This record gives sequence, structure tokens and C-alpha cells, in this order.
Amino acid sequence: MDPRPIGVFDSGLGGLTAVRQLRRVLPGEDIVYFGDTGRVPYGSRARETIVQYARQDIRFLLSQNVKFIIAACGTVSSTFPSEEAARLPVPYTGVVGAASRAAVNTTRSGKIGIIGTAATIRSGSYAAVIRDMLPGVEITAQACPLFVPLVENGYAQNGSRATELIIADYLTPVRERGVDTLILGCTHYPLLKKSIGDFMGPGVTLVDSGKVTAQAAAEALADLDLLSGRTDGGSARYYVSDTPANFAEQETMFLGEYAGGPVERIAIDAY
Amino acid sequence: MDPRPIGVFDSGLGGLTAVRQLRRVLPGEDIVYFGDTGRVPYGSRARETIVQYARQDIRFLLSQNVKFIIAACGTVSSTFPSEEAARLPVPYTGVVGAASRAAVNTTRSGKIGIIGTAATIRSGSYAAVIRDMLPGVEITAQACPLFVPLVENGYAQNGSRATELIIADYLTPVRERGVDTLILGCTHYPLLKKSIGDFMGPGVTLVDSGKVTAQAAAEALADLDLLSGRTDGGSARYYVSDTPANFAEQETMFLGEYAGGPVERIAIDAY
Repeated sequence: MDPRPIGVFDSGLGGLTAVRQLRRVLPGEDIVYFGDTGRVPYGSRARETIVQYARQDIRFLLSQNVKFIIAACGTVSSTFPSEEAARLPVPYTGVVGAASRAAVNTTRSGKIGIIGTAATIRSGSYAAVIRDMLPGVEITAQACPLFVPLVENGYAQNGSRATELIIADYLTPVRERGVDTLILGCTHYPLLKKSIGDFMGPGVTLVDSGKVTAQAAAEALADLDLLSGRTDGGSARYYVSDTPANFAEQETMFLGEYAGGPVERIAIDAY
Repeated sequence: MDPRPIGVFDSGLGGLTAVRQLRRVLPGEDIVYFGDTGRVPYGSRARETIVQYARQDIRFLLSQNVKFIIAACGTVSSTFPSEEAARLPVPYTGVVGAASRAAVNTTRSGKIGIIGTAATIRSGSYAAVIRDMLPGVEITAQACPLFVPLVENGYAQNGSRATELIIADYLTPVRERGVDTLILGCTHYPLLKKSIGDFMGPGVTLVDSGKVTAQAAAEALADLDLLSGRTDGGSARYYVSDTPANFAEQETMFLGEYAGGPVERIAIDAY
């Protein structure tokens, strides 16, 4: 048993979709979240920039005495070197492993689609893990660089025709390949789940990478005997690198019934 | 006469629309450009974050021994404190003054529209300057936060229906107010000029803030006796905070016939 908090970070607020699930399955755990809202988005940047930012994010979480780190960000999960992750003083997980496992367990046709940021798709991270698990799988990967800006600017929730057209632009080639499982490889994308699901049709199962990662992390914490031992009363503290005002405006969209808790701005450059 | 280069910076690559014009009107000047591509966009961030980033951008340009600084970024121009700009060791200009002057000289109806990033519109910068110049003016200001991501993700040039719908969402209230002049208050927006012009109609003059600022800067350099004295052969060097590869992909879109020149990555955090 370990009373220390779980650390979760993301390029921005998308990772809160994982926090929501984490609070649901582990209501007795404390959580420290860092969202790099002063430098979001990561997904359009170069590999070396993303790795540098991720190192600072991780150093900040370690300064908060966390017992476990979740990179609730498809881009970081696809980019941060696994050797470096293995050398961290606490266990670390990204979203690629759990989401790939869920997709492999779901598909019947062996045709899996993956959508994510430009950096995620360029990395080939999901495809490599899935091919290891399921040789012969047919993978269709598609970058969707406008999805994060659409979500962050209120175009996810209003049934916008412009959003539907952009979804169609990106996902038509994926649908044409006949996938039966689609990984939402970025933790912002669950906010577009309904529109993406409507476009792909009822025969396609969507895998929410943040959600399945939170479930896998809960199992890992239990296996490692790192749970707090409490069954409720867990708290959440939030840190951002831009103003907390933006966080306050958007948190309900991501956290739903788990919204609320102290939010503080930190200078991530200093880590 | 002064042989040193002119320094130009922007949150990303939008400021290159000003560089293009600067090279046209001052072909004998050397230019050093910094685009903060590792932290773009600025326009959705808080005032204090933008000011901190702008200070670093300016310190970098000063380290390059520039003789004059142009903030070719509507967001920085609207946010960086004028007292601080006045204390810099070289003359500094943003885009707000020149664009406001051009709009005031253009309008006949006294109804002026302003579009820009969220931070620009929130600051009220253009409106304050225009009201000083033209008391009684009727101003309609509208934030267009998705325009920068649309431009940067290839949705400006393909006559996209989604782009047209988002333009209509943002600009319908501006058109309904009957403006005859519209300031494109962000240096990315000239890439959407055709679509915006089509939507607003032939009776509305668009003011390109980067372009008029380059012209005003050329006049200021002449007045201050800071021109190089050369009439051609000026060079341009480009610095970015993300990978130069992204710059190479997009420079033609912004620079047109003036594309080309060395591009280098710097660590802007260190300034």
C-alpha cells in the first residue's frame, strides 16, 4: 500500500478523459495532473521537441512525489523513448499499450484503424505494438491534426457541420478499408466520439485510449501493491502552464461529474 | 545608414507574410526572422504567458544584433506592454498601429471590423487605437480561434467547404453590422484572404496587418536613417524553435517568390 498520489500528464486537457475514468475506478486515490496548456498542442511538433517537453512534465510530476506516472497523451506515449521510461524512479505507462491490447481483443475481422496526431501517426507506435500482438493484422493509420483545435474551440459539442466535414475528410479512407475497430489514439478524441461513431457506423467499435489506459493502470497499481488502500475520498490537484482560467472554462467538458479541485499555474520551463 | 539586419518575429510562420512584403519594398535589407514554432499558437494563451514568450523572442533577436524589431504577430502586438517596448535598445513596432491607421484611412462609412485571435480581441488593442484616431467610429470585433489551425493544416488553400462554414460562423455577425473595412488582425489570416473576401463581399476592403506594417516599418527605417543604403542583395535568415522540417514544408505558402534561405533551430527557453 502506498498513500502517494498518481501522476498524470498531457500536452493539454485531453488527458483529463483518463483522469475521469481513473477517479471512477479508483475513488480512493489522490491524483496530481499536469496539463501543458502553455505549449499545447504537442502533436504537430517535432520528435525532439516533444521528448524535451515530456521530460520536463515528468520532472514536475516527480517533484510532486507521485508513485506512478501516466502519460495520458497519445503523442508523448508514441514518442518518449521506452528505455528512458524504464529508468524512471517510479513505474510509467503511456496509452499505446492498453489501447492496442483493447483493439486486438475487440477486432474480429483483423482490420484495425488508428487515428491520432501527426506525430503519433508518423511514429508508427500503435501499428508496431499491434503487429507484435496480432501478426497478419491489417492496419489503417490516419493523422487528424485538426481534431484537437476543433475540440478546444467548442466545435466538438455543437453538432457542427464543419466538424462533420472534417471528420469525413480524415476518416473516409479509414472507413473504406472496412476496419471493425478504431483506436482513438489521442485523449482529446473522446470528445468527438459521437460524431466519429456516427460517421464510421454501428459495426465499428471505438477504443478510447485514455479510458482503457486508466483501467490498465488501476490493474498495474494493484499488481505492484501501490494502491492507497482507501476506497473513497481521493482528491485531485491540477497544474497547468497557462492560466488556470482556461482550465476552468473547459474542465467540465473533459471531467464531467468529476470536475472541481484546486488548479495552479506553474513555470514548466524551470523543470 | 546602418548595415545591421531587421529583426522580425511571430508566434509561428504567419509573420512571414510581413517578411514577404518587407523583402519586396526593401530588397537591400538583411532580415533575421524568428518563428516560435515550438510554442505556437500564442493567441489562445493567457496574457502573462504571451508576454513571457515575447520577451524571450525579443532577447533572441537582440542577440542577433538587429537594428529594428517588428512583432509581426497580432497577438504579441496586442499584448506586449508599450512601456516595455519603449525601453528596448532598438526601435520596436507591432502590427496594431499601422493596420489601424490603414483602416481609418480606408473606411467611408465609419464602420470597421476587426478579426484576430482570442487574446487579440480580448485585449481591445485595435479598437482602442482606432477610437483614438477616429472618434465616433463603430467597431465590430470578432475572435476567430480556428483560423490559425486551419491555415497551418492545409485548410486555407483547397477551397474547403469546412473552412467556408467556419468563416461563415465567425464572420456572419461582422457582415451583418455592415462594416466597409475589415482588419485581418493576425498575420496568418492573409492566407484565407480570398475566402474571407468572398464571404464579406466586394464592398468590404480587407486590411492585411502584416503587409501594411512592413510598409510602415520601411518608412520608419528611412526616417530614422537606419536603412542599409543598399538597393538589392539583402539576405534572410530564419530561426525556429521546432524542427526546420516544418518550416520547409510551409515556407512557400507564406513567402511565395521569396522562399529560401538558411533555417536553424534554437532553444528559445534559453533566452
